[in-house]
Amino acid sequence: MSELRKDPILNCWVIIAENRAARPNEFERLPPRRPTVTCPFCEGHEAETPTEISSRPQPGGTADDHRWSVRVVPNKYPALQAPGEPGNLGGMSTASDTDVARSDLFRATPGAGAHEVIIETPRHATRTSDLTEDELRVVLDVYRERLAHWKQDGRFAYGALFKNLGQPAGASLEHLHSQLMVLAEVPVAVRAELDAARASFAEHGRCVYCAIADEEMALSSRVVYTSADFVAFCPFASRFPFETWILPRRHASHFENIDDASLKSLATAARQVLGRIELVGEHPAYNVVLRTAPFDKSPLDHYHWRIEILPRMTQIAGFEWGSGCFINPVAPERAARVLREIDF
Amino acid sequence: MSELRKDPILNCWVIIAENRAARPNEFERLPPRRPTVTCPFCEGHEAETPTEISSRPQPGGTADDHRWSVRVVPNKYPALQAPGEPGNLGGMSTASDTDVARSDLFRATPGAGAHEVIIETPRHATRTSDLTEDELRVVLDVYRERLAHWKQDGRFAYGALFKNLGQPAGASLEHLHSQLMVLAEVPVAVRAELDAARASFAEHGRCVYCAIADEEMALSSRVVYTSADFVAFCPFASRFPFETWILPRRHASHFENIDDASLKSLATAARQVLGRIELVGEHPAYNVVLRTAPFDKSPLDHYHWRIEILPRMTQIAGFEWGSGCFINPVAPERAARVLREIDF
Repeated sequence: MSELRKDPILNCWVIIAENRAARPNEFERLPPRRPTVTCPFCEGHEAETPTEISSRPQPGGTADDHRWSVRVVPNKYPALQAPGEPGNLGGMSTASDTDVARSDLFRATPGAGAHEVIIETPRHATRTSDLTEDELRVVLDVYRERLAHWKQDGRFAYGALFKNLGQPAGASLEHLHSQLMVLAEVPVAVRAELDAARASFAEHGRCVYCAIADEEMALSSRVVYTSADFVAFCPFASRFPFETWILPRRHASHFENIDDASLKSLATAARQVLGRIELVGEHPAYNVVLRTAPFDKSPLDHYHWRIEILPRMTQIAGFEWGSGCFINPVAPERAARVLREIDF
Repeated sequence: MSELRKDPILNCWVIIAENRAARPNEFERLPPRRPTVTCPFCEGHEAETPTEISSRPQPGGTADDHRWSVRVVPNKYPALQAPGEPGNLGGMSTASDTDVARSDLFRATPGAGAHEVIIETPRHATRTSDLTEDELRVVLDVYRERLAHWKQDGRFAYGALFKNLGQPAGASLEHLHSQLMVLAEVPVAVRAELDAARASFAEHGRCVYCAIADEEMALSSRVVYTSADFVAFCPFASRFPFETWILPRRHASHFENIDDASLKSLATAARQVLGRIELVGEHPAYNVVLRTAPFDKSPLDHYHWRIEILPRMTQIAGFEWGSGCFINPVAPERAARVLREIDF
């Protein structure tokens, strides 16, 4: 099992998960887009993943024909595991078991949580825009289901839902998939953001994300897409070229509380935005991050869920590590104009 | 000129520097180690860089023969520039000049500062261990000189000194070089670390870095190298595989105050550590970050400068962006053992 370690200076946690070193990487020494003949996420290869947690049937299918459209399985190389679960399948012991040196200064705790993979389609598709709007809606519905499941479970504090597409974005398999990591503590970046949002609400009497959404729509130069329910824009202080946020226009702090109509509308928005980003340059790698409130909170006036899309065309280098400050070579106004003008 | 933008939620700054999009990248579509025939950093190509700021002569050379061992030039594609300097050489106008949308929520300020390149050798060398100990000492001496210069200047708050080696670490030219970015504000990551260090000192009455250095030496399992003046170890909560810190054993908050004897001893330590890291796997890309105190501070009891070496064998993915939490597949105890056992 992996372990969490607290940085003695900054109080942030690091997960030591040596088992992840053994996971396969189909990009290594291969052209990045070559489909693998033994993709464990394709239909017909279900036996190659750990036991299924949940799935959705194909439209028109029956429970008996076992044909699925979305499938949730435990990550075969988990960074976190629920307490009491059998050892991970990576099979490596960790150096930590034997010669780790701990002390008052160096505190560690087991890496308790969960690490699930959401396989988004039975086909070997590699871009989000390969999904139909309806297929994407089912994927988002599964996001909602898994977050609601772990919130209900009661043992954990936060569900970090994300997607890595392309090798530079950290994907090791190209078949479309998302991941959910369930954490025992609210992670440092989420805590920092919640604190800042709470302080802003106290000062201005209003949710800062609602204010940003209104202002972006009024200014319009950074807006990529709008509908009755959602607005997508390249944020003012974008860290990455073509960084785009999708925000619900009605205030809401917890993604898992989204209703069916909004989920459908979100699928439309997400496909429009991701489809355009996938046509910038040569199909950039990107990360998607769902930023949502912790499990244990009632609806919050000061926090507002969103989807962040972070294209990975630039490298994170020494300056970023040393300063916490990002250098972005594409102004968001330019990025938004390019994205609006793409014919998708 | 670039501009700094303050994130309206987190209060951290982003540099919008569109001119950097035009910089050449010799890695693109080329095998990563192919030497370029027109490397602007090689001896004989001095005219291809902006006007030299400073240089050191080759040992035994004279001022007249103009043969240099280390050369400092402005970055041709600067992310920051001193106020009143002529426009950058990248030559692009920025979208920000024309249609940027600002408001009370969206504050921006010109990207004032400096961005220098320290060319570490006149030869087309691509690994730090290609330098002799004495050559590396001169490079470190130039680090000291440039930091002291900008501290003396008085207009700026912080000097971020770093090195990107290899394309995955953000280098666009392979010829050995470091960079210095001089900033008008202490950046968010440094401020956060200073705050945490001050709080720790208040609680324990002792510099937390001194405590860590002592404890690592006592425990020994994570130590890579020690001498009378320095200790190098893989930190307890390493974010990256083979992450290694070099710390002075005597308390010191400002790198630029280092004396000549310690500089020589640091060159020995740095070459031992970097030479070993360069032999792990297939010569990993890495970032080097010099963490030192802000210019405007007198020597600080609670802060302690260090060199961080951050090998880039893993990708930063959606989980890291969403949580601020890193997943490291190699325990630092294992990493330190591997580094100690390398025959360098």
